[in-house]
Amino acid sequence: MKSDLDQLMEQNNLDAILITGPAQHNPPMGYLTGTIHMTGGDLIKKNGSDPILFYNPMERDEASKSGFTTKNLADYRFDELMKVSNGNILQATVLRYEKMLTDYGLSSGRIGIYGKMDVGSAFEIFSGIQTKLPDVEFVGQLGDSLIMQAMATKDSDEVDRIRTMGEITTSVVSQVADFLTFQKSKNGMLVDSSGNPILIGDVKKKINLWLTESGVENPEGTIFAIGRDAGVPHSTGNAKDILYLGQTIVFDIFPAEAGGGYFYDFTRTWCLGYAPDEVMALYQDVLDVFQTIESELEVNALCYQYQDRTCELFEEKGHPTIKSNPQTQEGYVHSLGHGVGLYIHEYPRFSSNVKEDRLAPGSVVTVEPGLYYPEKGMGVRLENTIWVRPDGEMEILADYPLDLVLPVK
Amino acid sequence: MKSDLDQLMEQNNLDAILITGPAQHNPPMGYLTGTIHMTGGDLIKKNGSDPILFYNPMERDEASKSGFTTKNLADYRFDELMKVSNGNILQATVLRYEKMLTDYGLSSGRIGIYGKMDVGSAFEIFSGIQTKLPDVEFVGQLGDSLIMQAMATKDSDEVDRIRTMGEITTSVVSQVADFLTFQKSKNGMLVDSSGNPILIGDVKKKINLWLTESGVENPEGTIFAIGRDAGVPHSTGNAKDILYLGQTIVFDIFPAEAGGGYFYDFTRTWCLGYAPDEVMALYQDVLDVFQTIESELEVNALCYQYQDRTCELFEEKGHPTIKSNPQTQEGYVHSLGHGVGLYIHEYPRFSSNVKEDRLAPGSVVTVEPGLYYPEKGMGVRLENTIWVRPDGEMEILADYPLDLVLPVK
Repeated sequence: MKSDLDQLMEQNNLDAILITGPAQHNPPMGYLTGTIHMTGGDLIKKNGSDPILFYNPMERDEASKSGFTTKNLADYRFDELMKVSNGNILQATVLRYEKMLTDYGLSSGRIGIYGKMDVGSAFEIFSGIQTKLPDVEFVGQLGDSLIMQAMATKDSDEVDRIRTMGEITTSVVSQVADFLTFQKSKNGMLVDSSGNPILIGDVKKKINLWLTESGVENPEGTIFAIGRDAGVPHSTGNAKDILYLGQTIVFDIFPAEAGGGYFYDFTRTWCLGYAPDEVMALYQDVLDVFQTIESELEVNALCYQYQDRTCELFEEKGHPTIKSNPQTQEGYVHSLGHGVGLYIHEYPRFSSNVKEDRLAPGSVVTVEPGLYYPEKGMGVRLENTIWVRPDGEMEILADYPLDLVLPVK
Repeated sequence: MKSDLDQLMEQNNLDAILITGPAQHNPPMGYLTGTIHMTGGDLIKKNGSDPILFYNPMERDEASKSGFTTKNLADYRFDELMKVSNGNILQATVLRYEKMLTDYGLSSGRIGIYGKMDVGSAFEIFSGIQTKLPDVEFVGQLGDSLIMQAMATKDSDEVDRIRTMGEITTSVVSQVADFLTFQKSKNGMLVDSSGNPILIGDVKKKINLWLTESGVENPEGTIFAIGRDAGVPHSTGNAKDILYLGQTIVFDIFPAEAGGGYFYDFTRTWCLGYAPDEVMALYQDVLDVFQTIESELEVNALCYQYQDRTCELFEEKGHPTIKSNPQTQEGYVHSLGHGVGLYIHEYPRFSSNVKEDRLAPGSVVTVEPGLYYPEKGMGVRLENTIWVRPDGEMEILADYPLDLVLPVK
C-alpha cells in the first residue's frame, strides 16, 4: 500500500523517488497522485516526507486535487534556462531538474526514478543530471520496483474501484451471453435473424461497444477464442471465425477504468447449444480444480504453493502440466494467477520460480486454472478476481455463474 | 518520409538507430514496422541498410509481416544470460543488447535511441551497455528527432490512412449534428423527449460510442465546450454543463486508428437554434481568416509566415493576438496549426519561433485559427486537415459544412 512507501524506500536504500510523466496511463504517477488529469509533471518524494508535485501552469487546478504540496514548473523560467543553454532543450531540461532537486535538498543521495518518457530523453536527461550532480546516484529498478511492491496490497479505496470494475465487467459478460443466446442456430452455427453466421469479430465489436457505453477502456483487448484457438492461451481469437455449436469458447475480458485506471480480470468458458462429452469432462476437471484452489486459499500463504498444488491436482486427473514437463503445449501450461491493479499483471505472482510472494492482506489476485488441447480443438479456463480482506477472508469481487453451456434456440 | 531516414541519419551523424518497445502506441516503432501487433521488440537500422527486427518467439508471425529481416530474441538464451548475471535481470538485459549490437557490427559508433520504456529501465540499460561498449555513443534526441523529421512528410499509403480517418471523423461529427438537431428546446436549453436537459457529458458519451462503433480510438479525448469554456482553448468542456441555445460550442475531435495509428484533427463551432449578433460577428471574423489562409497556402512556403499572417489579419479586424501581446488570453491566443500523423502534434510547426518548418510536399497539416473571449462567454475555432500534395496542390482530406447555426425545433 502507499503507506508502505517509506519502509520500502528504506529497504531499497533510496533517499528519494522521482516520478515523471502524465497521471494517466502511467501507473507510478497515477498511483501516487490518484485520479487527476495531468498531462505531464514530476513528483518527488523524500523518505519520510510527503510528495511534492511539480505541474505545468495550465494544470494548477488538477495538480491541487492530488492533495500534495505543489510547485509551478513555470517558476523555473524555462525561457531563461533556454538562453543559458543556447537554445538546447536537453541542457535546459537538465538544468531545471538540477535546480528542482537542489531546491529540495537532493543534490546528493540515491534517487529511484520511475514513470514515462521516451528512451532517448530518459537516457540523456538522467545522464545529464548525474554529470551536474555527481553525488546523486539515480537508480532504475527493472520490473521489481518498490512501486510494484507497494502496489501489491490495496487499500479500501482501491478495492472499491476494482470491485466497481468487476461489476461493469460481469455486466458486459452478461450482455454478451444474452446476445449469443438470443440468436438462432443453423447447420451447427450461430446465425443472426437473416441466417448469416455470427463471427467472432461481430461479438468483439459488441464487447467494445458495451464497454465504451459503460465508460471504461479496453486497452489490452479481449480474448474471445473458439475451438483450436481456445486451446492456445495467448490466442485472442480470429475475427473471421464462425461460432460453431458444441465448441469451447474461452472468453477472457480485462477492461480498465477510463484514463488508465484499475483493471479487472475475468474468464468464463462457454459452449453454445451443447457440450460434447469430451468437452464436458475437460470443463469438469477445470471446475473441480478451480473450486478446490479457491477453497484452499489462505491469508499470508505462499503463492507458488498454489501453483504447485494446481499442477498436482491436474496431474492426478491425468493431464500433463508444466511442472512435470516445462515445454508442454497441452494440459496446464501457465501460472495460476497474478495480482491485478493499475497494471493488469501485478504482484503477487503465482509462478513456481517466485518463492517469496504471499497472499498478504490487501492483495487482489486472479485465480485462473485452465486446460488446453489445441490438437483436439478445445480449451477451458475459469477465472475470478479475489480480494484477500484485512480480516483474512477471501472475497470474490464480482461473482458470475460458472455454467459451460449457453442454450441456443 | 521513411525513404529520408538514411539521409537524416547522415545529417545527424548517426551510424545506426535503435528503436525499442511495442509496435502499437509507440510511434517510432509503429512508423518503421507498419501496422503489426507486436507487444515488444527491438529494431536496429544501420545507415544504408534495411532494418533488422528482433522479436519475442510468440510473435514470429507478426514480426514477419514487417517485411524486414527478423531475428528471434530467444536465440540469445536469456536463461543463460540470467545465470551469468546471477539472476540480475538488468545485467542479463544489458548483456543481450551487447550481443545484439556486436552481432550486427555495432560495437562502436553513434546510435540514436528511440521508443518506449520506463525511465528507470531506459537509464540503467543504456548506461549499462555504454559501460560494456565504451566505443558506442548513445544519442537521445529530445523532441526534434530524426524520426519526427522523417514523419513530417507522408507517403501515399499514410495519406490514404489519414484520409480514411477524416471520413470517419466527419461522419461522427455528422452523427453528433443529427443527434443535436433531433432534440427539442425548452426555456433556452436543449432537452430530450422527456424534457430533461441534454448535458455535455451525454454528448461526449455518444461521441465515444460512435467512434468505437467506427472501430477507431479516442486516446486524447474530445473537446466539446460551451460558453465560457469555448473561450478557453485548452478546456475540454464540463460534463455537467447544459447545452444552452445561442452559445458557441467548440467541437474539436481528434481520434486515431485503433492500436495507436494515424490521427485526424477537425474542429467546427456550433450555435444551437440561433446565433446572437456578437457571436455571428466573431464567427464571421474567424471564417474570413480561415478561408483567406486556406487560399494562401503554397507548397514549400515557410509555416511561421502563416502564423504571422493570421495575427495580422485578426489585428486588422480589431482583435488582440499573441503577436502584439504574447500574454493575451483574449483574441487569437495559439498557433495556426501543426502536422498530423502517428502523433496528434507533428512537424511542420506554425509557431512564430520556428523559422525552418515548411509546407513541404507530403506534409499533412491542420489550419485552425480561432478567437476567444472567455469573459464574454464565447469562442470560435474552425479547423481542417490539409494534405500538401506532391503536385503542389492543397487538398482538404475530409470536407464538412462550416455552418455556425444548428437549427433546433
